Amino acid sequence: MNIRTAKTIQERREALEKETGSSLHHSGHYSLDDMVASTRNCENMIGVTQIPLGIAGPLLMHNAECIMQNYYIPLATTEGALVASVSRGCKVITQSGGVVVEVEDVGATRGPVFRVETIAEGQKLETFLFDHFDEIKNVAASTSHHLTLKTYMVSGVGKYRFVRFVFDTGEAMGLNMVTIATTAIAEYIYKTIGIQCVDISGNFCVDKKPSWLNFIHKRGKAVRAEVTIPSSLVTTVLKTTPQAIYDAWLSKCMYGSLMSGSLGFNAQYANVVAALFLATGQDPAHIVEGSMGVTTTEVCEKPVTRYTQHKNSDLYVSVYLPDLMVGTIGGGTGLATQREALTLLGLKPGEEKSARTLAGIIGGAVLAGEISLLASLAEGSLAHAHEKLARGK
Amino acid sequence: MNIRTAKTIQERREALEKETGSSLHHSGHYSLDDMVASTRNCENMIGVTQIPLGIAGPLLMHNAECIMQNYYIPLATTEGALVASVSRGCKVITQSGGVVVEVEDVGATRGPVFRVETIAEGQKLETFLFDHFDEIKNVAASTSHHLTLKTYMVSGVGKYRFVRFVFDTGEAMGLNMVTIATTAIAEYIYKTIGIQCVDISGNFCVDKKPSWLNFIHKRGKAVRAEVTIPSSLVTTVLKTTPQAIYDAWLSKCMYGSLMSGSLGFNAQYANVVAALFLATGQDPAHIVEGSMGVTTTEVCEKPVTRYTQHKNSDLYVSVYLPDLMVGTIGGGTGLATQREALTLLGLKPGEEKSARTLAGIIGGAVLAGEISLLASLAEGSLAHAHEKLARGK
Amino acid sequence: MNIRTAKTIQERREALEKETGSSLHHSGHYSLDDMVASTRNCENMIGVTQIPLGIAGPLLMHNAECIMQNYYIPLATTEGALVASVSRGCKVITQSGGVVVEVEDVGATRGPVFRVETIAEGQKLETFLFDHFDEIKNVAASTSHHLTLKTYMVSGVGKYRFVRFVFDTGEAMGLNMVTIATTAIAEYIYKTIGIQCVDISGNFCVDKKPSWLNFIHKRGKAVRAEVTIPSSLVTTVLKTTPQAIYDAWLSKCMYGSLMSGSLGFNAQYANVVAALFLATGQDPAHIVEGSMGVTTTEVCEKPVTRYTQHKNSDLYVSVYLPDLMVGTIGGGTGLATQREALTLLGLKPGEEKSARTLAGIIGGAVLAGEISLLASLAEGSLAHAHEKLARGK
Amino acid sequence: MNIRTAKTIQERREALEKETGSSLHHSGHYSLDDMVASTRNCENMIGVTQIPLGIAGPLLMHNAECIMQNYYIPLATTEGALVASVSRGCKVITQSGGVVVEVEDVGATRGPVFRVETIAEGQKLETFLFDHFDEIKNVAASTSHHLTLKTYMVSGVGKYRFVRFVFDTGEAMGLNMVTIATTAIAEYIYKTIGIQCVDISGNFCVDKKPSWLNFIHKRGKAVRAEVTIPSSLVTTVLKTTPQAIYDAWLSKCMYGSLMSGSLGFNAQYANVVAALFLATGQDPAHIVEGSMGVTTTEVCEKPVTRYTQHKNSDLYVSVYLPDLMVGTIGGGTGLATQREALTLLGLKPGEEKSARTLAGIIGGAVLAGEISLLASLAEGSLAHAHEKLARGK
Repeated sequence: MNIRTAKTIQERREALEKETGSSLHHSGHYSLDDMVASTRNCENMIGVTQIPLGIAGPLLMHNAECIMQNYYIPLATTEGALVASVSRGCKVITQSGGVVVEVEDVGATRGPVFRVETIAEGQKLETFLFDHFDEIKNVAASTSHHLTLKTYMVSGVGKYRFVRFVFDTGEAMGLNMVTIATTAIAEYIYKTIGIQCVDISGNFCVDKKPSWLNFIHKRGKAVRAEVTIPSSLVTTVLKTTPQAIYDAWLSKCMYGSLMSGSLGFNAQYANVVAALFLATGQDPAHIVEGSMGVTTTEVCEKPVTRYTQHKNSDLYVSVYLPDLMVGTIGGGTGLATQREALTLLGLKPGEEKSARTLAGIIGGAVLAGEISLLASLAEGSLAHAHEKLARGK
Repeated sequence: MNIRTAKTIQERREALEKETGSSLHHSGHYSLDDMVASTRNCENMIGVTQIPLGIAGPLLMHNAECIMQNYYIPLATTEGALVASVSRGCKVITQSGGVVVEVEDVGATRGPVFRVETIAEGQKLETFLFDHFDEIKNVAASTSHHLTLKTYMVSGVGKYRFVRFVFDTGEAMGLNMVTIATTAIAEYIYKTIGIQCVDISGNFCVDKKPSWLNFIHKRGKAVRAEVTIPSSLVTTVLKTTPQAIYDAWLSKCMYGSLMSGSLGFNAQYANVVAALFLATGQDPAHIVEGSMGVTTTEVCEKPVTRYTQHKNSDLYVSVYLPDLMVGTIGGGTGLATQREALTLLGLKPGEEKSARTLAGIIGGAVLAGEISLLASLAEGSLAHAHEKLARGK
Repeated sequence: MNIRTAKTIQERREALEKETGSSLHHSGHYSLDDMVASTRNCENMIGVTQIPLGIAGPLLMHNAECIMQNYYIPLATTEGALVASVSRGCKVITQSGGVVVEVEDVGATRGPVFRVETIAEGQKLETFLFDHFDEIKNVAASTSHHLTLKTYMVSGVGKYRFVRFVFDTGEAMGLNMVTIATTAIAEYIYKTIGIQCVDISGNFCVDKKPSWLNFIHKRGKAVRAEVTIPSSLVTTVLKTTPQAIYDAWLSKCMYGSLMSGSLGFNAQYANVVAALFLATGQDPAHIVEGSMGVTTTEVCEKPVTRYTQHKNSDLYVSVYLPDLMVGTIGGGTGLATQREALTLLGLKPGEEKSARTLAGIIGGAVLAGEISLLASLAEGSLAHAHEKLARGK
Repeated sequence: MNIRTAKTIQERREALEKETGSSLHHSGHYSLDDMVASTRNCENMIGVTQIPLGIAGPLLMHNAECIMQNYYIPLATTEGALVASVSRGCKVITQSGGVVVEVEDVGATRGPVFRVETIAEGQKLETFLFDHFDEIKNVAASTSHHLTLKTYMVSGVGKYRFVRFVFDTGEAMGLNMVTIATTAIAEYIYKTIGIQCVDISGNFCVDKKPSWLNFIHKRGKAVRAEVTIPSSLVTTVLKTTPQAIYDAWLSKCMYGSLMSGSLGFNAQYANVVAALFLATGQDPAHIVEGSMGVTTTEVCEKPVTRYTQHKNSDLYVSVYLPDLMVGTIGGGTGLATQREALTLLGLKPGEEKSARTLAGIIGGAVLAGEISLLASLAEGSLAHAHEKLARGK
């Protein structure tokens, strides 16, 4: 018995445990450690909310270090058809040779706002930050061994100046860490030059809100993922054509999104990001940031043979997620079922580059979701096209 | 023993069951009905993800029908301090006489995109929609008893036209329903005038993506909630002053958000929306839409007595959430633990106006979260202010 | 001697006067009527700024009433190459059979903001507007014979409510008119229900600022213009290919604009809008609104004959300008040189539908500018492509 | 006779010539040098468009080098009341001790888009830019003595990568210069690593379109200007109160702008920017970028004496314009009337820091416009407030 032939949930869990060598004990039982959860994750706790956990894949991925690997994707969801949809995308990606992923460590950000009384005082703050960046880095470092201040940018209006501090927080999503570090920096600034922080988080972070600043400057991990699907697989697995998918994409993800003033030029990032975030213990409020991004498609024409004019068209699809706040340690990642999902992905809490790999897997799974949904939309309109052609006869 | 004196999770659950008369059986045990969940909510299911469930409140609310009621707010979260933060907000709201809530039934939307070859054909589509709106309503109605087409708007560029259909879907969030209805409408249009739908969902809905269209035109339920907190409660419960909260709000929710090109002019809508959505079985990808919105604060000066110049300042705080996609039936609302959370709020699945009430409660809880976080931020900077004054002596 | 063979500015002016039967007397002499201008248009006047005026075209247009007509396009500009660029676009459009234009009379808008103390008072305002819309229309109508209130929409946060009133202002751009009408409406509301207007223009108009509200809801005139250019003309006149233009457009007007959070998904609307606005006496601050909009391109494949697989590709190009605030009477349209430019276009001040026609002409000229610039950009990269192919041999 | 007592346009011009020592000969006569204009600024020229030119001020300014100076502001406009409005603002600023201005030399930008076939090729481009930045700077420098490449940023989706090059272009606005330099850079990249530029301007510049990228990253000159107006001047000159102006500002420039998804959180930047741009020969299409920005106001409470509780309130007002594309040489600045306007401001073409000073003056004039319009709006609502108080008796 294997994951495909399994009939019941228990059989499927056992097959998966066997195939991946990981344990799924807690996912099958109520076993949340109340003491831990109620201390670290939730005050006034009364129990748990249970969310169905499904498995998509396997997805063949070339990870950040270019090692190919198959991943089963854990998706916690209540939306029927999502797991099936991602699975179809995984199938066509894997048969196409796998997804190539690029992950950029942007860093966690905090954007405190400071009060200045004049333009001159604003310049004083800017000068201080520039001249004392090394000291400020030390102040930040003194608050945690797991954190490094990488860079910053300044902006402001009227009597307020915003500083966006960018931190490396290792394998943790790190928001608590950077809040503590930023508080220490703000103290240091206040003590040294008397300029006061009004809000330690001044919405210049920008935390858990859609924003062009995060879209343009990126936050957490920025991920690109791409695949070229041979024409034949588009036909057989996705039941449509590269051109039909392109048309569906152009009208929806370009025209539709821009006509509605959206920051999501994609089909369904939020669905896949949500399911993976919940399964792996990420902060669900960060789904907001993960919903931003851009899908592209392209019909790649190529002669079938050098002797014919006739062309065969492959389909290139890519996703770009500029703002994934993820980690493999801290927050909800330590809870039993969430930890099992991370283990299923081969990720050990806090292990080096594990957060990068997690971000890459999310990118790959999101790509699978895009391909599958765009194919479904295209198939719908394709039906009409066929019908129209038939009537044309 | 009551909810406040309860020490363990089990005691707390029992106290809550006693006080509200609702059952919390499933929240305390692994008891997801695998058959139901794996059929309706999740393919290839292997178990569950467990998320800690805490209780904030009680929150005194004047609901849509202006009946005052106390609510315990169920929050599924892994973010430490969130429940405590919302609870503090609930406390100060309740002591201030409760939150007033306004809920507008905007409706679920679908935005299909149609292909036209010329400007003239685009006009033909617009004319058809206008002239045959009654027939189109009937087509929609024929797909479900639970759905009514309310209105539509048209836009478009080049050879594409977008139609945003707005539906009343009763107590369900209704996205599946409106997809089916929109498919039928698209069929009807195609059969009648030969204009083809390219994507049944053309990102003019706009589903699960941040967008100015939804912000401006609203979607699902649009909610306003407001409270005026007496100066004395700001001091005693929130440990800060109305003016300090106002300053924290102005710099963060106005200046910070606009300087970062955000659609979230608020402190932490996403946190509270996420926790309530997960607890009550809403689609977590809709947190994206729920993160948009605007918090306002105002210091209301009033003479303490008619004989003194001295003024006392109350604090007015409001929230505006233009886009809450919620329901009490369908999706994840039927799962055992999620159903319990709805029951705890006194909501019966599909009961008339239950979705409105749920939206109102979310508005009230979001307001509680805003007050509490802004007070914390203000308190931080207030500490400095005091220090500064002290040094000034 | 005609417009093409003219060598000097005077010869060109005379040829144009002869061909179009309009006078260009003032454009050739300092002849601004100081008394008029200093009374109506400019306080503390000291003279004039002179801006070079060039002529592009002729442009063959199917205007709103589908009557074909040739237009010479007056462009006041200091940017070398602009007139030549628009002329090239006009040439290829005209040879392709002309541009088809659609103009929608959206209307001038004013968005006052009202102060309410509670949600209930906000509802009172909404109810009043709904119940007394006829009275409000009468109030508006009483302020001018040239103005009709068409519709409105309401929004708001906290203690503020915004109302966007939409007016038909005939052939005038009408902003002064609608300000007066809105002031009267605000007076009426205040006197009747005691709710006070805080700003008669509350940036919900939205006047002279880029905004998604105007993009989505449109303002003034909304214009679409389209043309299909035969493959052969793309090659001979534009010196490039349909596919190269498509690639230039996709990367610039779609990807480039969305990656930069722009509201202008186009190549150079602002240049052409500015030159036509200045020439015809429109308010130059409205260029801001005219810069928003979307260009689309499409390669239309068609078999050359029924016997060959070989395909020939035409190029479809369209523009969409949702927000053109224009008029043929009032503001700067009465100044001598500006009036001459309007006359050159066959537009009489205030004549019925003259503002529509002007908007349509702007749409056509903007289309010409887009085609020409995209072709230039494409030609640049095409050079490389050829080079690359050559090297590949 | 002086500028205030002058009755006719000629008298005013003469008085201004006398007071400032500059010539206004051309502004009073049709004297455009046809040969020059038709060669450099406008093809197919047929004459000129004449725009009334008025004078506001004097405005007392602390310029970038902190030298106080009075400026008469030349405004080319057809909008009645604009000059008067700016003049009133200048008066109150000057009487308050003058405006303080901060100008940042951000630089002119070009954002070409490159084609890559894979993620790996994209990384190759990024690496090349990083490793060969010095060579690229040299390539840029080789195209003009007046230009230096300062920095760059990279972004991209799918098979496209955008590079935003930032240049110092001295006293010229410099767009033509940076296009030539960017073309040379693109050639160099193509020849060295074979990666091709698709559009030399890929809307990542972002030129003449509203965009969050320019808002956040700034472009050209970024300007802040601020003033604190004593309470007494608000009353006597502006006929309103600091609090009323604050209320008008909060509801309009904050709430109104954010509710409409605007990038202009201000009252009327576009009006003043347009009039100054036209008068001084800037590119009118850049008004679009100049319309973005943020006005702030603040009521500064201070005890009148140490013995009273009674407080007097001053009014702080600031403007922030992140994107002013201006120069004192090139483009339309060489035309006779435009040159006169620059000379009137004491600016010599191409003189060091003259573009900075021009940007600062624009900032100061924009501040004057904001103060005046907000005061007018406040005065309107203030009237009601008084009336209400009266009725309350």
